[in-house]
Amino acid sequence: MISIGLLGAGRIGQIHGRNIAASPRARLAAIADPMPEGAKTLSAATGAPVRTPDEILADKDIEAILIGTPTDTHADFIDRAAKAGKAVFCEKPVDLSSARIRKTLERVNKAGIPLMIGFNRRFDPNFAALQKRLADGVAGDVELVTILSRDPGPPPVSYIERSGGLFRDMMIHDFDMARFLLGEDAVEVFALGSALIDPAIGKAGDVDTAAVVLKTASGKICQISNSRRATYGYDQRIEVHGSKGLLSAGNVHETTVQFAGAKGISADPVQNFFLERYAGAYKAEIEAFIDTIVKGRKPKPDGVDGLKAQLMADAATKSRETGKPVKIG
Amino acid sequence: MISIGLLGAGRIGQIHGRNIAASPRARLAAIADPMPEGAKTLSAATGAPVRTPDEILADKDIEAILIGTPTDTHADFIDRAAKAGKAVFCEKPVDLSSARIRKTLERVNKAGIPLMIGFNRRFDPNFAALQKRLADGVAGDVELVTILSRDPGPPPVSYIERSGGLFRDMMIHDFDMARFLLGEDAVEVFALGSALIDPAIGKAGDVDTAAVVLKTASGKICQISNSRRATYGYDQRIEVHGSKGLLSAGNVHETTVQFAGAKGISADPVQNFFLERYAGAYKAEIEAFIDTIVKGRKPKPDGVDGLKAQLMADAATKSRETGKPVKIG
Amino acid sequence: MISIGLLGAGRIGQIHGRNIAASPRARLAAIADPMPEGAKTLSAATGAPVRTPDEILADKDIEAILIGTPTDTHADFIDRAAKAGKAVFCEKPVDLSSARIRKTLERVNKAGIPLMIGFNRRFDPNFAALQKRLADGVAGDVELVTILSRDPGPPPVSYIERSGGLFRDMMIHDFDMARFLLGEDAVEVFALGSALIDPAIGKAGDVDTAAVVLKTASGKICQISNSRRATYGYDQRIEVHGSKGLLSAGNVHETTVQFAGAKGISADPVQNFFLERYAGAYKAEIEAFIDTIVKGRKPKPDGVDGLKAQLMADAATKSRETGKPVKIG
Amino acid sequence: MISIGLLGAGRIGQIHGRNIAASPRARLAAIADPMPEGAKTLSAATGAPVRTPDEILADKDIEAILIGTPTDTHADFIDRAAKAGKAVFCEKPVDLSSARIRKTLERVNKAGIPLMIGFNRRFDPNFAALQKRLADGVAGDVELVTILSRDPGPPPVSYIERSGGLFRDMMIHDFDMARFLLGEDAVEVFALGSALIDPAIGKAGDVDTAAVVLKTASGKICQISNSRRATYGYDQRIEVHGSKGLLSAGNVHETTVQFAGAKGISADPVQNFFLERYAGAYKAEIEAFIDTIVKGRKPKPDGVDGLKAQLMADAATKSRETGKPVKIG
Repeated sequence: MISIGLLGAGRIGQIHGRNIAASPRARLAAIADPMPEGAKTLSAATGAPVRTPDEILADKDIEAILIGTPTDTHADFIDRAAKAGKAVFCEKPVDLSSARIRKTLERVNKAGIPLMIGFNRRFDPNFAALQKRLADGVAGDVELVTILSRDPGPPPVSYIERSGGLFRDMMIHDFDMARFLLGEDAVEVFALGSALIDPAIGKAGDVDTAAVVLKTASGKICQISNSRRATYGYDQRIEVHGSKGLLSAGNVHETTVQFAGAKGISADPVQNFFLERYAGAYKAEIEAFIDTIVKGRKPKPDGVDGLKAQLMADAATKSRETGKPVKIG
Repeated sequence: MISIGLLGAGRIGQIHGRNIAASPRARLAAIADPMPEGAKTLSAATGAPVRTPDEILADKDIEAILIGTPTDTHADFIDRAAKAGKAVFCEKPVDLSSARIRKTLERVNKAGIPLMIGFNRRFDPNFAALQKRLADGVAGDVELVTILSRDPGPPPVSYIERSGGLFRDMMIHDFDMARFLLGEDAVEVFALGSALIDPAIGKAGDVDTAAVVLKTASGKICQISNSRRATYGYDQRIEVHGSKGLLSAGNVHETTVQFAGAKGISADPVQNFFLERYAGAYKAEIEAFIDTIVKGRKPKPDGVDGLKAQLMADAATKSRETGKPVKIG
Repeated sequence: MISIGLLGAGRIGQIHGRNIAASPRARLAAIADPMPEGAKTLSAATGAPVRTPDEILADKDIEAILIGTPTDTHADFIDRAAKAGKAVFCEKPVDLSSARIRKTLERVNKAGIPLMIGFNRRFDPNFAALQKRLADGVAGDVELVTILSRDPGPPPVSYIERSGGLFRDMMIHDFDMARFLLGEDAVEVFALGSALIDPAIGKAGDVDTAAVVLKTASGKICQISNSRRATYGYDQRIEVHGSKGLLSAGNVHETTVQFAGAKGISADPVQNFFLERYAGAYKAEIEAFIDTIVKGRKPKPDGVDGLKAQLMADAATKSRETGKPVKIG
Repeated sequence: MISIGLLGAGRIGQIHGRNIAASPRARLAAIADPMPEGAKTLSAATGAPVRTPDEILADKDIEAILIGTPTDTHADFIDRAAKAGKAVFCEKPVDLSSARIRKTLERVNKAGIPLMIGFNRRFDPNFAALQKRLADGVAGDVELVTILSRDPGPPPVSYIERSGGLFRDMMIHDFDMARFLLGEDAVEVFALGSALIDPAIGKAGDVDTAAVVLKTASGKICQISNSRRATYGYDQRIEVHGSKGLLSAGNVHETTVQFAGAKGISADPVQNFFLERYAGAYKAEIEAFIDTIVKGRKPKPDGVDGLKAQLMADAATKSRETGKPVKIG
């Protein structure tokens, strides 16, 4: 049984804390959050005690920590966990600054601790199955990847202002997915964006509708599109066009119920909420993290994956601002 | 070029007449119909002259006739065509009385003319492709066949009164389809029926909602259900469960357009009108009829197929009336 | 927190035991099973102690028992629980003899305990959603119900010999589903069956392929078909044709991944194992059972539902044996 | 009856010639082609005489001409038809040089003849229905358009060398579709392309895999992707994400037949050949052309539409060559 301490008992921390507690191979050792309410709720549900981050980091019986705190605290907590020799699972992103990420990765490397980044979509049963078949050669060589990723509704403008912008806050998941599927790094990115949904998002300097096209060194091409508002739910689809055929993974519907009436055929909406859509993914990624400790597996996605997705997001942001394609080093 | 004379220029005659005229291998030689309007319309569209049935049957240059007249004239016209040595394509059914059908088939046999019956659904590209794969062994041995067949709306009660009842008028197509898919004759039929859509149909002694279950000598089972009113269009589906898997053929939609909105996903209705749904089937069956003449192929479905479907419809009618299963000889 | 004792720690008991333990409103108080291994496994996973059935039935702190033992012990355990004043959740069927079921229901009634029967499919999120929309009038009046229910593979012949036959062992779920959807009792049943998959099943006096057609007093019709072997997985579909349209609920696929290649489009198989396909249903039915105790809700499906499904299974069995339709009630 | 002369009896001319001959409102007056075989075949099928282009253009009884000749002859024939005062339907493109197109459009304008361009996909029943619903406001304001367009296999390199490149030869259809759906002109285009399928295509200076992203003045975004080789058939899909939801139109399959077996569910491939996939579109566009003459409707798509799609293709070609986004004037 691995003892894991949880830093951050907000929306995502609640999920991770419960999944740790429910895993037969792990124990939720302690919960820390400056907001007492979330920590208390999770403590009641799991039996894990509420403690301070300092106590958790100092506890020698705690082998690993899961960081689900606000973004601007991630890198510091990773640094401290590295010093303490604890394995780390950190929610994306490590930091909004790639320079800061690089520093932290150096410390992680020196300390030799496993660091896994929470790109949960790699663990979605549908996307994971697609990637496995791709790796098995089912579709042949990858040529053209299409990622459609749309949220049910935009977050508050106050959130957007501190988010780093759509490419770093939302599309970063798709950049990681692109790398996961292309099996290669992007060397060039071009981005277009518009504020079509809410002018206040435009005033805040951000966009709510965006499209990116990117290319790898060997010439593979990937298209990504994002919208902050899909009336029909949380739209998450991928397609990989390869030399042998097309692999695709579609949305998950609420139920399989359909109604055929005088106005046509209607099916249930797609699952609307990311915590529902990716419930299986969150469970699977915790088990993968436990594997890095129990079985000594290399963490995947790791800190370098986190950095590379961030560099793509930076490049897309710059491309959108300058109107020019941006090379990635 | 085969010269074909058309008897009957009603709704179905218009279709057949145009398909004959459009075929590169046939010529619509003449049209006969006691109602001058339909014959005139078709004559204008195809250039074929309007003549009397007697003239058509007496014309030695006409090698084949297509009978699309009212049911109670079918057997007589077949008899006369047999005497005249002409090939015949006759709309289903040959007659509502199986005794009368038997007599006509004897005359047809004696005359040695090809007689093909208009069970158009065998020629639907979807159902034909399914049956071909079945014959190729894709699904293994047939065990359980499900036929769902529903009309968009009931015909007038005046029509129903002279129709022979739902089993002879509507389900007869499904009985032929059952034989086509089972590759074997039914030995026993049990039928249930209700008048749930329109009480006037019940008063006329008929049903508008019905289900039949039947069995072949080797134990294969088939279920058929009919409704005279499907709000969502002309519902025509089949499924064949075999030892190696399930072959199914579904409905044809108006377009592939879908809309995903706040209320779910909606697709276009299925094609609503049988002349639209089976447009391809009508063309293909005329070509198959021409093949029986040009290539000397055995007509299929032939008069015996017509008789056997009629015997099944008779048995189902009797089963529904007596409440007991009925054996088929 | 409701204390629930579990009798039977076989395949289904393992599921129920874990779901009870995971419910925030219930406690798995004790586990009994003559086979020590299953009980031990479940005890290790949940922390619940292993005890004898006598101890569990005598324990005043245990408010409810869940019966997942072999069929021939169900009625006795219900009787004893009724005497002890405990709420009961019993796996279907209560007994293979309807006379025995009636006796037990009398005792349950006298004791005034809630008795819920494990027809899990009513709680499947897809079927439950369909039934809710039906109840909300989405499809209008029910006219024609189609239930397709097929297992991935047949059980051992040794199991089949003691199962009561396909209609009581397998189709009983569909009979309950028919009542759930028709909102009315069947008054007449006709059944056909064949042993097409394995001759040994036929030698054991049973069938492996079957079709039933039934009717309610108001004339609604239902068709059910079963196969003991669907190569493509656990096939569980329902369709309700009503005056306003068709409600249907389809199979659940392993993933949403599709591959389009030179040979066509292929999708993932449907979920193959009933414990996977109905995982959500098993959870929901335990919560519904807890509701009957915590909120005093009438148990649904209850003992009468269990009896009525059994009577339908008896009637179908008799119909198949005699070759005649059988009246119910 | 409109008399139409056909210039060019190649693959596409055969289709148009037959559709003209089959239209109740038009007459195929004459056929011209330097290759006698195609003209003869079409003449035999339709009864129309074979003549020279000069004869056709000089014939006062011919009111309209359809140009299906090689691209480099289009503009000349339009110029001559304009002088002769005949309506023109011209296959895309008018010319590979936009300067040449502009000159011809001036002559067409001066002559006042209707000129319609053969962007057949606007007339596909699926895409036309989608665009109609878009125009009806079903999806609200257009924000993000996705066009996936892939050919079954690449043409010979000899063809590619004279084609003007993928953006002018293949993606030009998608540029027109983008304008059709966006309801607005693109102001900026960025293109990426690779030769991944056949290195010989790369050596010929062209690409076989490409992605374009473009933006309109009001900020609407469109993504297009092309591949010269889709193993699974002719892939033609569009999606329009709007403020009220997502409208999409998918591929057309050969049949509705599916097979569910031990390896999963398989459906028929999508229609593989553009003449089959767009058979309905070719018919509908001829009828629309006849409407411009008979009803005096403005031709749509017209010469300006042809020019604008060409300017987009030019911009995309330049973008791909320079690696920079290109503004459209």
